[in-house]
Amino acid sequence: MSGQVRKIRMGMVGGGEGAFIGVVHRLAASLDGEIELVCGAFSRDAENCKRTGQALFLSPERCYSNYAEMFEKEQVLAPEERMEFVAVVTPNHLHFDVAKQALESGFHVLSDKPATFTLAEANALEKIVLSTGLLYGLTHTYLGYPLVKHAKQLVADGVLGKVTKVVSQYHQGWLATPPTEDNKQAEWRLDPKTAGVSCCMGDIGVHAANLVEYITQDTITEICADLTSTVEGRVLDDDGCVIFKTERGAKGVISASQICVGDENDLSIKVYGDKASLAWRQEEPNSLWIKYQNAPSQLIRVGVGELSSEASAAIRTPAGHPEGYIEAFANIYKDFAKQVCSFGDDTNVNAHVPGIEDAVRGMAFIENVVVASKSSEKWHTVVLNAEALK
Amino acid sequence: MSGQVRKIRMGMVGGGEGAFIGVVHRLAASLDGEIELVCGAFSRDAENCKRTGQALFLSPERCYSNYAEMFEKEQVLAPEERMEFVAVVTPNHLHFDVAKQALESGFHVLSDKPATFTLAEANALEKIVLSTGLLYGLTHTYLGYPLVKHAKQLVADGVLGKVTKVVSQYHQGWLATPPTEDNKQAEWRLDPKTAGVSCCMGDIGVHAANLVEYITQDTITEICADLTSTVEGRVLDDDGCVIFKTERGAKGVISASQICVGDENDLSIKVYGDKASLAWRQEEPNSLWIKYQNAPSQLIRVGVGELSSEASAAIRTPAGHPEGYIEAFANIYKDFAKQVCSFGDDTNVNAHVPGIEDAVRGMAFIENVVVASKSSEKWHTVVLNAEALK
Amino acid sequence: MSGQVRKIRMGMVGGGEGAFIGVVHRLAASLDGEIELVCGAFSRDAENCKRTGQALFLSPERCYSNYAEMFEKEQVLAPEERMEFVAVVTPNHLHFDVAKQALESGFHVLSDKPATFTLAEANALEKIVLSTGLLYGLTHTYLGYPLVKHAKQLVADGVLGKVTKVVSQYHQGWLATPPTEDNKQAEWRLDPKTAGVSCCMGDIGVHAANLVEYITQDTITEICADLTSTVEGRVLDDDGCVIFKTERGAKGVISASQICVGDENDLSIKVYGDKASLAWRQEEPNSLWIKYQNAPSQLIRVGVGELSSEASAAIRTPAGHPEGYIEAFANIYKDFAKQVCSFGDDTNVNAHVPGIEDAVRGMAFIENVVVASKSSEKWHTVVLNAEALK
Amino acid sequence: MSGQVRKIRMGMVGGGEGAFIGVVHRLAASLDGEIELVCGAFSRDAENCKRTGQALFLSPERCYSNYAEMFEKEQVLAPEERMEFVAVVTPNHLHFDVAKQALESGFHVLSDKPATFTLAEANALEKIVLSTGLLYGLTHTYLGYPLVKHAKQLVADGVLGKVTKVVSQYHQGWLATPPTEDNKQAEWRLDPKTAGVSCCMGDIGVHAANLVEYITQDTITEICADLTSTVEGRVLDDDGCVIFKTERGAKGVISASQICVGDENDLSIKVYGDKASLAWRQEEPNSLWIKYQNAPSQLIRVGVGELSSEASAAIRTPAGHPEGYIEAFANIYKDFAKQVCSFGDDTNVNAHVPGIEDAVRGMAFIENVVVASKSSEKWHTVVLNAEALK
Repeated sequence: MSGQVRKIRMGMVGGGEGAFIGVVHRLAASLDGEIELVCGAFSRDAENCKRTGQALFLSPERCYSNYAEMFEKEQVLAPEERMEFVAVVTPNHLHFDVAKQALESGFHVLSDKPATFTLAEANALEKIVLSTGLLYGLTHTYLGYPLVKHAKQLVADGVLGKVTKVVSQYHQGWLATPPTEDNKQAEWRLDPKTAGVSCCMGDIGVHAANLVEYITQDTITEICADLTSTVEGRVLDDDGCVIFKTERGAKGVISASQICVGDENDLSIKVYGDKASLAWRQEEPNSLWIKYQNAPSQLIRVGVGELSSEASAAIRTPAGHPEGYIEAFANIYKDFAKQVCSFGDDTNVNAHVPGIEDAVRGMAFIENVVVASKSSEKWHTVVLNAEALK
Repeated sequence: MSGQVRKIRMGMVGGGEGAFIGVVHRLAASLDGEIELVCGAFSRDAENCKRTGQALFLSPERCYSNYAEMFEKEQVLAPEERMEFVAVVTPNHLHFDVAKQALESGFHVLSDKPATFTLAEANALEKIVLSTGLLYGLTHTYLGYPLVKHAKQLVADGVLGKVTKVVSQYHQGWLATPPTEDNKQAEWRLDPKTAGVSCCMGDIGVHAANLVEYITQDTITEICADLTSTVEGRVLDDDGCVIFKTERGAKGVISASQICVGDENDLSIKVYGDKASLAWRQEEPNSLWIKYQNAPSQLIRVGVGELSSEASAAIRTPAGHPEGYIEAFANIYKDFAKQVCSFGDDTNVNAHVPGIEDAVRGMAFIENVVVASKSSEKWHTVVLNAEALK
Repeated sequence: MSGQVRKIRMGMVGGGEGAFIGVVHRLAASLDGEIELVCGAFSRDAENCKRTGQALFLSPERCYSNYAEMFEKEQVLAPEERMEFVAVVTPNHLHFDVAKQALESGFHVLSDKPATFTLAEANALEKIVLSTGLLYGLTHTYLGYPLVKHAKQLVADGVLGKVTKVVSQYHQGWLATPPTEDNKQAEWRLDPKTAGVSCCMGDIGVHAANLVEYITQDTITEICADLTSTVEGRVLDDDGCVIFKTERGAKGVISASQICVGDENDLSIKVYGDKASLAWRQEEPNSLWIKYQNAPSQLIRVGVGELSSEASAAIRTPAGHPEGYIEAFANIYKDFAKQVCSFGDDTNVNAHVPGIEDAVRGMAFIENVVVASKSSEKWHTVVLNAEALK
Repeated sequence: MSGQVRKIRMGMVGGGEGAFIGVVHRLAASLDGEIELVCGAFSRDAENCKRTGQALFLSPERCYSNYAEMFEKEQVLAPEERMEFVAVVTPNHLHFDVAKQALESGFHVLSDKPATFTLAEANALEKIVLSTGLLYGLTHTYLGYPLVKHAKQLVADGVLGKVTKVVSQYHQGWLATPPTEDNKQAEWRLDPKTAGVSCCMGDIGVHAANLVEYITQDTITEICADLTSTVEGRVLDDDGCVIFKTERGAKGVISASQICVGDENDLSIKVYGDKASLAWRQEEPNSLWIKYQNAPSQLIRVGVGELSSEASAAIRTPAGHPEGYIEAFANIYKDFAKQVCSFGDDTNVNAHVPGIEDAVRGMAFIENVVVASKSSEKWHTVVLNAEALK
């Protein structure tokens, strides 16, 4: 029991029938019973929106036909009734505008990633977040796993010594063949108009990069990148590799791919230091390996022994009761709800949620990789500002 | 979206601060947003009950000081307001009385296992369930895993051929040493007054037996049992082994233990047939192995390819997004809510929830094992009626 | 380099074309270049014997048509030429007579297991070994694995605390269906005339039991056994389960089976103590798990860090260069060759090779299990003398 | 039994006390009993050479003080007595000269890798091999694993469809810290005078590249490389990453490192096609995964079911009896011995041993990577001739 004093009221933009990630957001929001979905603009298709709201037991008058209307009408509801934050789960090209309008209407925002369609938008969004002073969170889901949090702490505590090499991989196989016609997911993700400048790096490579920077608390500063459109006829990348250097002198490599037939959602990371190394894999998220030089390896398991306080707070069941993706996702929601609940208070809510800085870094990673991939020069210096990238 | 037309209203008995399983029940009930906790009698300690209810955002007047009061007062609320079913999450010795009173007050019951304190109570409860005509469900959680459901289907479809041998194991290590003083869980589970005639077999061995019978859809008819109280001073078993024969002629062995240091919640099952075998392990629940005679093994994964309809209905995310214990538990709740929702309708709700028959079989397994363990005869025939066991 | 001062000369009885285990014995003997095969009586079929010897580059005059002849003729060769020990790799029913004649002709014996056809023969063989004063070794191959040796040391060092429970399993699947006609292996192993009183327990269950006693250095004293002939028409067991108690008060269970479709050679053991537990599995022999109460598990790997001296001496390559079954087998041969080399010296050769005591215990296990399985009493006390068993 | 008609006589250059790889070569040569070590020039240190020969039971007069002497004296022995081929297991800088002199003295050569010190030497060696018409083999050990051979066949058979991406990794950790003084291995491998232009890529990266080309039967044509000297004070690389393109249009990445603390000998490869993918890992060499698009994965195991004929011929024991590194190494020796045995015959010995072409490709890979790593251009076209590289 978290000490939160009331249920937080959430609205949702996107996530109508046929969407994938909206459902996951709702499961994540619902799990701990501390957030209540009160309204939604689930689809541009009014019928879809209505059906979705009904299936979610919403009152029909709070199923809005578009997000502009939602922000307008919710604003005028009584403070104890109106939504407090909005979950943004539309296709990528709308993220910025929804977040912008929400913030400008006085609502906190928890957005699916990537934060925006372009780095320029991310730069602009950062200004809006700062000027409104409202909360902005980004669902970099994988940071919600307890052992990812613990891994970060182990590196911070010097258990690995000086970090020398990082290998991160995010392999999926679902785009290995031309998608069948009715695959909405594949359609919008491969279309530059809805997905942006990158498919594979934008959708999953950015998670791998984010994991590298989060766990090491270091920054990718130089990259050598190679993107590929493997399947004929594609405009955007479905595969890519990035060799990188970090601010503190580590080297590393990120391999991201959506054409790795038979790989499901194979995100993994290995961090090597001069004393020890760690390894974690998303598909077996409750195990974290620590390996030493010429000594037995250790298998750290969720719920077994002492973990870092941040990791411990992210666990719901005893050892051996596997927790997974929805629980990790719910940890982001739970922490964001805590921030919303104490917003404006003096209470020091020490709940980590990836925020606008991660949003900018993520968009910068994507656009820098695209630029670097096109260059015949080996190395490219990462910049965070869209102006500087041109 | 399940097609359920309204949120189902749930009350809870047990699950106050300091309890473990009550929290899990609430997460499971909450996940899909289709059940609403409306009242509770969480603890005999009024303060604990109140604090628990408050943390769950309940109105104070629906936090009852005991379950008798709860049933009485909820009965007189308006039909669209009062709870529809009660989740029973108290220590074992109260399960029967809570369920009995709830049913006799007109409420459906979803009970933690074991269903009752004794087989005699289970026999009595069966009569009450039948006479009231109300719904009774038992949270045999592990049946909620998609691949357990799929395993059952594979056996039913004859993929394994004739089943010849079953090996099931449930090993934990948390009782390997005398528990520290403040371990409430250990205390009541090792005390015959609250736990019943068995600790290890009653708490976890019964899950292993249930899994055997569920997946094979066969019945354990004869057993040879040996229970052990490993740690000095214990009255109840903390370890045991059961060799068994089934109605259809398979043999098998169940090893259950709470003194297996370092084992977390290691429930596993292997079913061998004359054509193929299957293997599943709770700590990696999204993988199911099928092995063949002199041919490559197959790894079936949640979300990959075609699964049985029952399994498919129990999955919430795409392949590679691990789902775990809470999701399995939530599947039991989701299915029970569906049954409650359509109760009295003509709709044919085909949602499997373990029921009163499983309750009786579970209690029979426990008491028969205890009797068999004490016997110097090798084989003991399992009986389902407490009278016959004496 | 082992310090052995000359190649040891070996003869072989059995192992002609079509045999399985003879080939493995020869690979094991050959690996370290310290043993030389000088003669053989490979088959009762003279042509087979000759062809086998030729393929092994033996001189034709040392390919004998039967073992009696071999012992007779080798005896009269010059001491520096004649064989020093004989490897016995015939079907089970001949083991005793070959070993007996070899010992009585002055040759050391290294025998495949089981040592003899009956416990009575094993009792008799023990007397012959003692009276001749010659070396007798038994190829309990699995004791040759480095991490099995290390596991024994960990238990001896008290790392596990007091051992409370042992679970050992040996599952194969190759007899799950009636064997095809040309399967010589299956034929003689299922025939009481060549295999003895048991197929499954005699062939593989005995390995599991041996592993239990070796690693714990404890003794199985009481058993509750159940053997099964799963496939129709079989006289001997192809599956079985043994619950046991040990001299020092541990409990345990052995599941052995040859009808576990899809299992290859799945021998594994888990030893639980009140401080820690260990787990080892033959199919991944270079890994040994140590698990603790509420602390990270340790993975011990061959070649990584400090192992016991006995284990270290059994390793040939650096970490990560997997060694397997043939290397384990070769360790038995290597150690036996050392014993032969220093036989009669004052040098203290501290090379462990399972000997006549293990031979008797192995045969006793098999025959006691068969007797116990037939009894309607649950528990049976293990006896080592064939007279006492009747 | 292989049908080889006599034991093949081998000499060895290098492999005295303190050497690692020489011991492995001898185990590999010895395993199948088809090769006899008859002479050696094991060390420049005459005492070491003598002691080594003695421990190997060689006659003192065939322990030569240097390889020139060995070739000279063996040449004049009777044909049925003198060595037939020489195993070259010296440090890298001597490989060329030993091989050259051996070939020019009329002896076949089986060399440890890398074949030579420089690409120029490899180009020269190729001419010598062709002009002498003698046999030249290279111990690319990992090609000796049965499932590597089977993987090659699966790709050739089109099981994977068109290969699109290959990820190969070879991670070790033994050079993560400055080596202790008495580590001979580390010393010569990090010294450009004995190791050549590269440590990590030359020692292990080249194995990863070789595995890529062998399994896909495709050719790496363009590379983007980045080498690192992680530990201070090192001249040569201890870590590196290579992105590559192949002749048939696949992309890939090789990560090789000797500073991956806790990694043992972690060579692995994943090959993705448009129909299926495969994955193999050296530390679990008896397992090969085949994964399909949205269908269960298959685990292929050594000894289970039908494998390619080349793979089958490389297996010595039944399923579940793990074979490892020495067996893989022995397969190279066994096949080379077959070639030697039938040299000059009309018999068509279809035994694959990596040869002079692989030798040149290996050296070319190493030197091209070093050049590419130094370039500021992203892509570099691989050339096979030392002249062209300058």
